[in-house]
Amino acid sequence: MTTIAHHADLPVRAVELLDRVRSATPRVHCLMNAVVPKFVADGLTALGAIPSMTSSVEEVEAFVRKADALAVNLGTLDAQRREAIWLAVAEAAGGGKPWVLDPAHCDYSPPRAAFARELLAAGPAAMRANQAEFALLEVAGTIVTVETGTVDRISAGGARVAVGNGHPLMAKVTGTGCLSGAVIAAFLAVEPDGFVAAASAMLAIGVAGEIAAGNARGPGTFEPALLDAIAALRGDDILDRARVSHDEG
Amino acid sequence: MTTIAHHADLPVRAVELLDRVRSATPRVHCLMNAVVPKFVADGLTALGAIPSMTSSVEEVEAFVRKADALAVNLGTLDAQRREAIWLAVAEAAGGGKPWVLDPAHCDYSPPRAAFARELLAAGPAAMRANQAEFALLEVAGTIVTVETGTVDRISAGGARVAVGNGHPLMAKVTGTGCLSGAVIAAFLAVEPDGFVAAASAMLAIGVAGEIAAGNARGPGTFEPALLDAIAALRGDDILDRARVSHDEG
Amino acid sequence: MTTIAHHADLPVRAVELLDRVRSATPRVHCLMNAVVPKFVADGLTALGAIPSMTSSVEEVEAFVRKADALAVNLGTLDAQRREAIWLAVAEAAGGGKPWVLDPAHCDYSPPRAAFARELLAAGPAAMRANQAEFALLEVAGTIVTVETGTVDRISAGGARVAVGNGHPLMAKVTGTGCLSGAVIAAFLAVEPDGFVAAASAMLAIGVAGEIAAGNARGPGTFEPALLDAIAALRGDDILDRARVSHDEG
Repeated sequence: MTTIAHHADLPVRAVELLDRVRSATPRVHCLMNAVVPKFVADGLTALGAIPSMTSSVEEVEAFVRKADALAVNLGTLDAQRREAIWLAVAEAAGGGKPWVLDPAHCDYSPPRAAFARELLAAGPAAMRANQAEFALLEVAGTIVTVETGTVDRISAGGARVAVGNGHPLMAKVTGTGCLSGAVIAAFLAVEPDGFVAAASAMLAIGVAGEIAAGNARGPGTFEPALLDAIAALRGDDILDRARVSHDEG
Repeated sequence: MTTIAHHADLPVRAVELLDRVRSATPRVHCLMNAVVPKFVADGLTALGAIPSMTSSVEEVEAFVRKADALAVNLGTLDAQRREAIWLAVAEAAGGGKPWVLDPAHCDYSPPRAAFARELLAAGPAAMRANQAEFALLEVAGTIVTVETGTVDRISAGGARVAVGNGHPLMAKVTGTGCLSGAVIAAFLAVEPDGFVAAASAMLAIGVAGEIAAGNARGPGTFEPALLDAIAALRGDDILDRARVSHDEG
Repeated sequence: MTTIAHHADLPVRAVELLDRVRSATPRVHCLMNAVVPKFVADGLTALGAIPSMTSSVEEVEAFVRKADALAVNLGTLDAQRREAIWLAVAEAAGGGKPWVLDPAHCDYSPPRAAFARELLAAGPAAMRANQAEFALLEVAGTIVTVETGTVDRISAGGARVAVGNGHPLMAKVTGTGCLSGAVIAAFLAVEPDGFVAAASAMLAIGVAGEIAAGNARGPGTFEPALLDAIAALRGDDILDRARVSHDEG
């Protein structure tokens, strides 16, 4: 059961959770693809979380043991990374730590889609994906789903909410989606209600993206501007800019 | 045979091809080194192409099958990457898709030079390299060669052209050369005349680099400025700034 | 024995060594983690050094043979990277080239700490680490130690110096520590006195960080500003801003 009775309650909860992330500085271990690790690490640091990124099979369990949440991204998949992901997921599950699945590009490659299905069956707290990726994967009831797009749709059980914040430049920077998955993990580390945590994360990122766009001349300057905006994000920015509505599904 | 009769025809063709890339949004699969994948992905996205970057041997064929062109870069070479490169090249060749070879740093390591020679024999549409790398490799007649430097020299069969655009800051950002190779692949995806495609790509990148330098305070701010400039590049920028001449060889 | 008699002599030596790096353009081979290679390569290039980054076991010796110094970072460790590190260290030692150890995150994972101890026994010229990492590792007398923090403490034999330059934003960008290790390697390539080389490197980076903070709006824009500041760093900046003191230990 979610702890918000109405979608209009989300912005206030998001402000509260952002404060909680900043004071708790949760550790988030990330199994990312080989393209975006620095950007995701910088984004988590800007948020106030503490990232770690190794995907070595010999070390990943020790890092997850030290972490408060785990973000798993399927980009740049190979045998060793698959093994590292299973070790990390088992360690997170054993420690009762939330983990987020991002089945990136699973619509490009059948082995990746098959692996995404196996991981989904292992019970992540949340899955973030786009429409094409969701179309390939069947999600069971207890997992929070975050379908990102022009509007982000978050649902869990019967609860549904749509977050309209964000900016088209976000799609022009490789890794903003991966970063969203990691930010959801950071919010899950400080809030047991996965629906509220995931929706708050998307709202915070979306508002930061809008502010960043005002300080950017294009996709290149948008990236550092986004990190600046995440670091400087104020509660009032979220309350003033939130575009949250009930998602009719 | 190339479709331009005179080097002075290049800028108009480059403008046309840039428009074609932006409307066709070709998918370019990249086998890059471990240093630059995000920068290359962001650069292709800024251009209007759609990048993918995995070098997993289990997935690379599926990604190349979805792509319109392939860019192969030899940086950070190991056994698995070599295998992935061969799988990708075979898939591209089988699908009649153009691929570009960038034998990065093959002058540093004999096994890398040997591998570059084998790949060259497999018939890329184009090879991009610097003078030291070209000195090590013998190129057969049908491959478009792009020798980058202060002036970029493009040749194919008897056709030769020199592009004088660019800026010294480009050499101060790791990966601008790798990005050039990927941009050539994007232009090859929309234009069968490899000579015109490669020369147009170098002209577009060079002009974007000049514009970016005007918005940068040093090599750090040059990188986001370059991505901004690629995204905002107008046909008139190319026509006004082109420094194209016949290359006497 | 160190060649400075008093800590107040350091800034002048640092200016001299920065000039020497820029005119000698030393090649620095880096075995970095998978997160930061482009940032470290860009930072070394901004400094005036020439980076190379491969960690392929088949190639690393050829690259170290061409290099003037080696920087070894333990982030994102796996079996292949460990093998590459040993090959690189042996090649550097055999060629009489200085190498720097950065036992990044060795406090997170016991196998990483064990590996750091083995490497330390192999005799790097310098080790850069934070307090938590130093607490795990015992350093023998001839190795220059650089303990980074709010104040950086450099020591070797009986010599000790504290460098108070730097800015809190440096800790908000993933990889500034890794870059410091690589910059120490670049200074070691041009100066046999490891104590002076390491302390000069930390002073130069710290001053560049302060200048960069004045051109940044947050951690995102700080990163390109830092690269700009390294590239533009003048001797007078170092002399005017140096905060060097005797470290009482």
